[in-house]
Amino acid sequence: MKLWGGRFTKPTDKLVEEFTASIGFDQKMAADDIRGSLAHVKMLGACGIIPQEDADTISEGLRGILQDVREGRFVFSVENEDVHMNIEKSLIERIGPVGGKLHTGRSRNDQVATDIHLYLRRETKQIIALVTELLQALTDSAREHQDVIIPGYTHLQRAQPVLLAHHLLAYFGMFARDAERLQDALKRIDILPLGAGALAGTTFPIDRELVAKELGFARMYDNSMDAVSDRDFVLEFLGASSILMMHLSRFCEEMVLWSSTEFGFVELDDAYCTGSSIMPQKKNPDVAELLRGKTGRVYGNLFGLLTVLKGLPLTYNKDLQEDKEGMFDTVETVKGALALFAGMVRTMEVRRERLAQAVKEDFSNATDLADYLVRKGMPFRQAHEVIGKLVLYCITQGKFLADLTLEEYQEHSPHFEQDVYAAIDVRTVVDARDVFGGTGSKRVQAAIERADKAISGLKDWVDEAMKVEPLD
Amino acid sequence: MKLWGGRFTKPTDKLVEEFTASIGFDQKMAADDIRGSLAHVKMLGACGIIPQEDADTISEGLRGILQDVREGRFVFSVENEDVHMNIEKSLIERIGPVGGKLHTGRSRNDQVATDIHLYLRRETKQIIALVTELLQALTDSAREHQDVIIPGYTHLQRAQPVLLAHHLLAYFGMFARDAERLQDALKRIDILPLGAGALAGTTFPIDRELVAKELGFARMYDNSMDAVSDRDFVLEFLGASSILMMHLSRFCEEMVLWSSTEFGFVELDDAYCTGSSIMPQKKNPDVAELLRGKTGRVYGNLFGLLTVLKGLPLTYNKDLQEDKEGMFDTVETVKGALALFAGMVRTMEVRRERLAQAVKEDFSNATDLADYLVRKGMPFRQAHEVIGKLVLYCITQGKFLADLTLEEYQEHSPHFEQDVYAAIDVRTVVDARDVFGGTGSKRVQAAIERADKAISGLKDWVDEAMKVEPLD
Amino acid sequence: MKLWGGRFTKPTDKLVEEFTASIGFDQKMAADDIRGSLAHVKMLGACGIIPQEDADTISEGLRGILQDVREGRFVFSVENEDVHMNIEKSLIERIGPVGGKLHTGRSRNDQVATDIHLYLRRETKQIIALVTELLQALTDSAREHQDVIIPGYTHLQRAQPVLLAHHLLAYFGMFARDAERLQDALKRIDILPLGAGALAGTTFPIDRELVAKELGFARMYDNSMDAVSDRDFVLEFLGASSILMMHLSRFCEEMVLWSSTEFGFVELDDAYCTGSSIMPQKKNPDVAELLRGKTGRVYGNLFGLLTVLKGLPLTYNKDLQEDKEGMFDTVETVKGALALFAGMVRTMEVRRERLAQAVKEDFSNATDLADYLVRKGMPFRQAHEVIGKLVLYCITQGKFLADLTLEEYQEHSPHFEQDVYAAIDVRTVVDARDVFGGTGSKRVQAAIERADKAISGLKDWVDEAMKVEPLD
Amino acid sequence: MKLWGGRFTKPTDKLVEEFTASIGFDQKMAADDIRGSLAHVKMLGACGIIPQEDADTISEGLRGILQDVREGRFVFSVENEDVHMNIEKSLIERIGPVGGKLHTGRSRNDQVATDIHLYLRRETKQIIALVTELLQALTDSAREHQDVIIPGYTHLQRAQPVLLAHHLLAYFGMFARDAERLQDALKRIDILPLGAGALAGTTFPIDRELVAKELGFARMYDNSMDAVSDRDFVLEFLGASSILMMHLSRFCEEMVLWSSTEFGFVELDDAYCTGSSIMPQKKNPDVAELLRGKTGRVYGNLFGLLTVLKGLPLTYNKDLQEDKEGMFDTVETVKGALALFAGMVRTMEVRRERLAQAVKEDFSNATDLADYLVRKGMPFRQAHEVIGKLVLYCITQGKFLADLTLEEYQEHSPHFEQDVYAAIDVRTVVDARDVFGGTGSKRVQAAIERADKAISGLKDWVDEAMKVEPLD
Repeated sequence: MKLWGGRFTKPTDKLVEEFTASIGFDQKMAADDIRGSLAHVKMLGACGIIPQEDADTISEGLRGILQDVREGRFVFSVENEDVHMNIEKSLIERIGPVGGKLHTGRSRNDQVATDIHLYLRRETKQIIALVTELLQALTDSAREHQDVIIPGYTHLQRAQPVLLAHHLLAYFGMFARDAERLQDALKRIDILPLGAGALAGTTFPIDRELVAKELGFARMYDNSMDAVSDRDFVLEFLGASSILMMHLSRFCEEMVLWSSTEFGFVELDDAYCTGSSIMPQKKNPDVAELLRGKTGRVYGNLFGLLTVLKGLPLTYNKDLQEDKEGMFDTVETVKGALALFAGMVRTMEVRRERLAQAVKEDFSNATDLADYLVRKGMPFRQAHEVIGKLVLYCITQGKFLADLTLEEYQEHSPHFEQDVYAAIDVRTVVDARDVFGGTGSKRVQAAIERADKAISGLKDWVDEAMKVEPLD
Repeated sequence: MKLWGGRFTKPTDKLVEEFTASIGFDQKMAADDIRGSLAHVKMLGACGIIPQEDADTISEGLRGILQDVREGRFVFSVENEDVHMNIEKSLIERIGPVGGKLHTGRSRNDQVATDIHLYLRRETKQIIALVTELLQALTDSAREHQDVIIPGYTHLQRAQPVLLAHHLLAYFGMFARDAERLQDALKRIDILPLGAGALAGTTFPIDRELVAKELGFARMYDNSMDAVSDRDFVLEFLGASSILMMHLSRFCEEMVLWSSTEFGFVELDDAYCTGSSIMPQKKNPDVAELLRGKTGRVYGNLFGLLTVLKGLPLTYNKDLQEDKEGMFDTVETVKGALALFAGMVRTMEVRRERLAQAVKEDFSNATDLADYLVRKGMPFRQAHEVIGKLVLYCITQGKFLADLTLEEYQEHSPHFEQDVYAAIDVRTVVDARDVFGGTGSKRVQAAIERADKAISGLKDWVDEAMKVEPLD
Repeated sequence: MKLWGGRFTKPTDKLVEEFTASIGFDQKMAADDIRGSLAHVKMLGACGIIPQEDADTISEGLRGILQDVREGRFVFSVENEDVHMNIEKSLIERIGPVGGKLHTGRSRNDQVATDIHLYLRRETKQIIALVTELLQALTDSAREHQDVIIPGYTHLQRAQPVLLAHHLLAYFGMFARDAERLQDALKRIDILPLGAGALAGTTFPIDRELVAKELGFARMYDNSMDAVSDRDFVLEFLGASSILMMHLSRFCEEMVLWSSTEFGFVELDDAYCTGSSIMPQKKNPDVAELLRGKTGRVYGNLFGLLTVLKGLPLTYNKDLQEDKEGMFDTVETVKGALALFAGMVRTMEVRRERLAQAVKEDFSNATDLADYLVRKGMPFRQAHEVIGKLVLYCITQGKFLADLTLEEYQEHSPHFEQDVYAAIDVRTVVDARDVFGGTGSKRVQAAIERADKAISGLKDWVDEAMKVEPLD
Repeated sequence: MKLWGGRFTKPTDKLVEEFTASIGFDQKMAADDIRGSLAHVKMLGACGIIPQEDADTISEGLRGILQDVREGRFVFSVENEDVHMNIEKSLIERIGPVGGKLHTGRSRNDQVATDIHLYLRRETKQIIALVTELLQALTDSAREHQDVIIPGYTHLQRAQPVLLAHHLLAYFGMFARDAERLQDALKRIDILPLGAGALAGTTFPIDRELVAKELGFARMYDNSMDAVSDRDFVLEFLGASSILMMHLSRFCEEMVLWSSTEFGFVELDDAYCTGSSIMPQKKNPDVAELLRGKTGRVYGNLFGLLTVLKGLPLTYNKDLQEDKEGMFDTVETVKGALALFAGMVRTMEVRRERLAQAVKEDFSNATDLADYLVRKGMPFRQAHEVIGKLVLYCITQGKFLADLTLEEYQEHSPHFEQDVYAAIDVRTVVDARDVFGGTGSKRVQAAIERADKAISGLKDWVDEAMKVEPLD
């Protein structure tokens, strides 16, 4: 029998029951649901809305269920629709009709919203912790490869040489923003909806602040109708996750490029690659490719929920049930991706010799040659023109800039002198970018120190933030 | 031991193995995979690429596995990555090293593509069959309610009265196009990739036509590199499904509106509604809302795959593994949605009395009043202006057009005569739209007959198309 | 002649020039571009990188161009590709070769990024100002209609009566979060990329802090490669805008419903509606519909840019040129939508009599009847069941709950007494939700006061934030 | 004065007028609108609905306007909202009140739908013509480079060598499907909505078949409510365009890779590249990158419209106005992209020497070595294992397979004999894929011949299809 069946004369169609039931996925929030109920019933007792002894009986019953859930013994049934009804039914079976008092002063609408807030608050913090670990892996790798120079690209054409450490720290910047963004999103995740009832509040003299404190919420929803229909916080999480996955996809694209025969800049560890069923020589950067591909799934989850919410009138509508699967999938995808990715970065082998050779065989020091002329007094635009022609000359001669004779230089401009060779040496070129945020060695060294400090700050933040989250 | 491990010196990382394994979802294609292998090995034997007795041994082994799969006995393991490797390993365990010959002349790249084509071909046909059943439900309902008039809307403002049957047949038009679109998509699903090998074809003298014939494929891919990297056909299916779900979402929106207190046009069957945990009076149109919400999921699946494919170089990349879950989810969502929706339409009760009253209490006959003046010789634009003012006059007087006296009419235009009352009677108004595709009763009757014929044609098509699909 | 033509032997294809040129849209940033250049050249002079008098000449030239741009006199040409090259060419024409020194120590890559940051920073602040005005309109309307009760809905079925003010404040909650989210996004918009050069920094001894201070930036990018390839901040703006538009779409959906014949809760002002070319009676809520529709465009812009960025290797790639049009379109759409929407809310007429009648004719007081029984000692689940059957009884009798006799009540439960009638009066029902965030009158009064305070805080914030933005 | 103003007491708000006006973009359909009106008025005259002489006067007036539109003389005004009202107003100004008769028996709802069908039908055909030209460019290039071998990739790791022609023809397969898909979409574009009126048909005895014939439509909408609210055909066009752009993005990704220093397989023509404002050596593949980026815009347009349509009740809603800009933008993007891309392919220079060297320096002949062992009787799985170990041996020795001595071979398997060297020669390897769709030279030659035939068929189709489209 449904818990809401009084007004109905016919049972729910079997197919309908299966299709509308959420228990297949919302059981992931069973512990959160019970945690919310424990806080709620504690408040009901404290406020005298139900007798304290009833509150105690219910709490004990809930703890028993929680135990069963954690140990995998609890059996969820589709007939009971969702995680809330499954738990409430089980509670009543365990402790009798008094269990029916648990739902006093609340509705499934504010209950499910509370579950999602609790679930997503904890998971977002865990994701920030994983981002921090990735930041650590990047910083460690940057420190380890501080002396390695690689080609820097724009348009996938060689542009200017940079330190590998500098390149890695570009990703540090991206993922650090991801952590920041997730922290900002948390401000809107960390709001308590419970007490909103079905949509309008409740007639019982509940104490929402007490519940908020018990569950560690920083704020309460100001408006009950908003509380039960708001899913912004899920969207914001999905948006931040989409950007994070996009960053991973960019790095993965580079891992795929760099481990190709043509680039050959790194060798990914065997543990992060797989082979081919047919081609015995193959060692494929599967992890990098798959993570790049998983970006699509997270984008899709974001777009799915945006579509669901578009044009929905207030307040709760069944459409909102579609908020969960994409969120769960995103949480699991992002957590798995971050963990795998950090491992891949930590184990990749940089092919130093190949890189040392590579940076000598291109025209990526041409800007420095133009800057050289500017320092000799030529306006920049003119210097650019002169060097452009010099490069063209080199291509026709099959030479690089360092191969030209001083005579050849001087044919293109009388400003060239012997010191030109020192100016275009690859290490000179790198170190010449001695500006805050630039690739000069000292600047990169300073950036690594800033990174260490940022990581340390994030770790402290995570430790503090996890204090209100119960251990599983 | 991996089947591709020769070139590797380290095992795959455990987390990598779990994250990159597809067996958790691609086992849905196990029967398709075996079906493809049976055709392949039959061809290998027939072409003398492997001895006929080996082919027979392999076929027998595969049939045993198929049996186990169908009866739920087959155990899939994550360590064997995907459905192909799971089956091949099991085959070798059952029949010994000769099982290793099955993979001669093919690769996982053309094999998995073949599986997806087989899977999606069958499911697309089944979806067309379900669309046909929905078309039948709509036509039956239109026939049953041929005499019922409802308000017709533009901008959700009452516009002109229409037959309920006409309204229902508007959806017939949409879903009929969905069937047409899926049939067109099938042309590009029904192409055989097997024989493409890893990317370049194979060195064995295989006979692709024989395999195509065995598996009932209408065409073969013309180019092996295209064959293994093409997922257009999945995108096209997802696109057609997105449009189909959009149609359902529009109808569901109307079901939600029509079953509100304010509209009150229909009463959905108790079997298709659910109640509230807190509000005893509630009877919610959950199915309609949920189907509307599920549109988001399908859009998300489409966008997810479009993202995956964007910018991928040829040929197979691991990113392509992300093609399946969204496809499976879409197939299940669309099939469930169509079945539920048809049931909801068949069981909904039309509130005839409420509708009979409703269509008398608005200004939706105003266009006919303008047309009346046009027939009396007034240019349309001027007639529109006159009637606009007449409506404004009615609103200030608290009257509808039928309530005005002839004097009131004539104050607005001398063209009005006694016959004006007949011209704006709701049934007259409806029947006056006596144009192909219009809401006039005879036209709607003819449309129902066309619908019957179209359904009959679709049923024949489905029967024919299913002939090449094996019974499960 | 191109400014970069030295290395080329052939001119750009005409069609290529047109297709790749961004001047058609990036001229929107002309003032931002010049503002950035003025700060850059001031720094170049101050650091002695170019002679102070050259810096002065260039500044003067730039100011002349700015004047021309503002007065619509400046002529942009496709041949000069983009806004940067157009301005630089014009500068050189005006002041001679010395103009070529402006580009010293920067690249188009950091320059365009700076322009976008400047543009989006200002526009985001202006959007926050418009959101604040909408919050004001909502609060004013809530205050004005504090005594009006309307049906509250879940599943578009009547659930519990609420104050119209409470309903309006639910949207206050949403838009207040939008403002918060945009403020958070600003933290990542308000970062200076200039000084990153093409990708690696510059060889000139520039002072990035001086430029940051001059342009009012709170932070500088830590890493030059990140600086030129980051478009997170645009994505974050598009994400926040998508959520904002989703909120508008929900409100607009309700405006469309509420102004229908069936609901009839409000009358939108003629100034916000349009008519039909054919149906003289029509008054369509066009603005509400169009704003609802414009949600799609903003979602599309978000997904467009997410797609562009997916899988791009570092650093700048031409794909990034696609970052602008969707951003411009979103800025204009959101600004227009907010302004229009606030006007529509301010001018809509609430049909008080219709609402006073409506809230009496439903079962939305059923929850209170269940709560009544709970207060008499019945467990909630049992009370829910009793009232469910009572509602069913009413439906068969054609009555509402207030119409039942005490005998009828007592046949369903002996707990019912004479005080039941007072308990289900609509005003009692509303005021009984006397909980923080609930619809009780006092709670709503308090919420309005909180809203006033929040608006005042936002206004102060905007005033402060606009101080660093130059007047146009 | 609005043409629909009779019922209104206040003018439209100025900002509303600007925001809701579509004339800024729908003027692109002015010629289509007039074409539709000419057919409509011809029918009105032929059916005696208006006097023949009025019909003639109107036709003449419309032709005058068409002339003005074509010559850029026609002035559109925002006050007149949209293209239809602009033209109708101008008509009335030109020929007097008789112009008001043009709108007899139609509404803007069926009129605008007709315009879009006409516009998109013509543009879709033109896009198919451009796809055909691209197919021609690919086929020509394939023919020209029939003897060039390039590395074939899976996972961006070298897999097996293939003919460059084969690689190009993989794209032929994709774009040929695009043409097919657009032809299928045309079936649902090529349907006449006119005659549907506002939503229900019309009271005038119009002849829809006559109009359909006049405008060259293959079918008429069966249901008037469907006719005015259907935008499936636009979605289907956007879906097909998204797939097409995805194909371009894949090819462009390869162009970017191939023109990098590391790959160096092709040299794009100077006319299709641009330089850097700062780095004199740069020659960037801008066109390829930009086209890859433009994929995002088209995806965004698709998702924008899917969002707009989700959950809209019947029939016309103002939201539908958002159908056009994304469609126009997609048409222009796709047409520009196809034209540019074909030019880039035609002018790119293949670096034959570099490729000849490249294909010798990898392990992409390893599969053939495994197949070699299979032909000597070893089961495939075992051969795969042996060759895997052999590759590993080579890597440690710094050798390729062709460099091994026969002794080294035989240490790994006694099956190896002298003929092994011939088996792994790159040309042998390519030609060994002698299977339908494979890369063997003869097969590719045959594929080129099939391509020629397909192009010829498409050209005939386009010629025939364009016959019903008037010359502009």
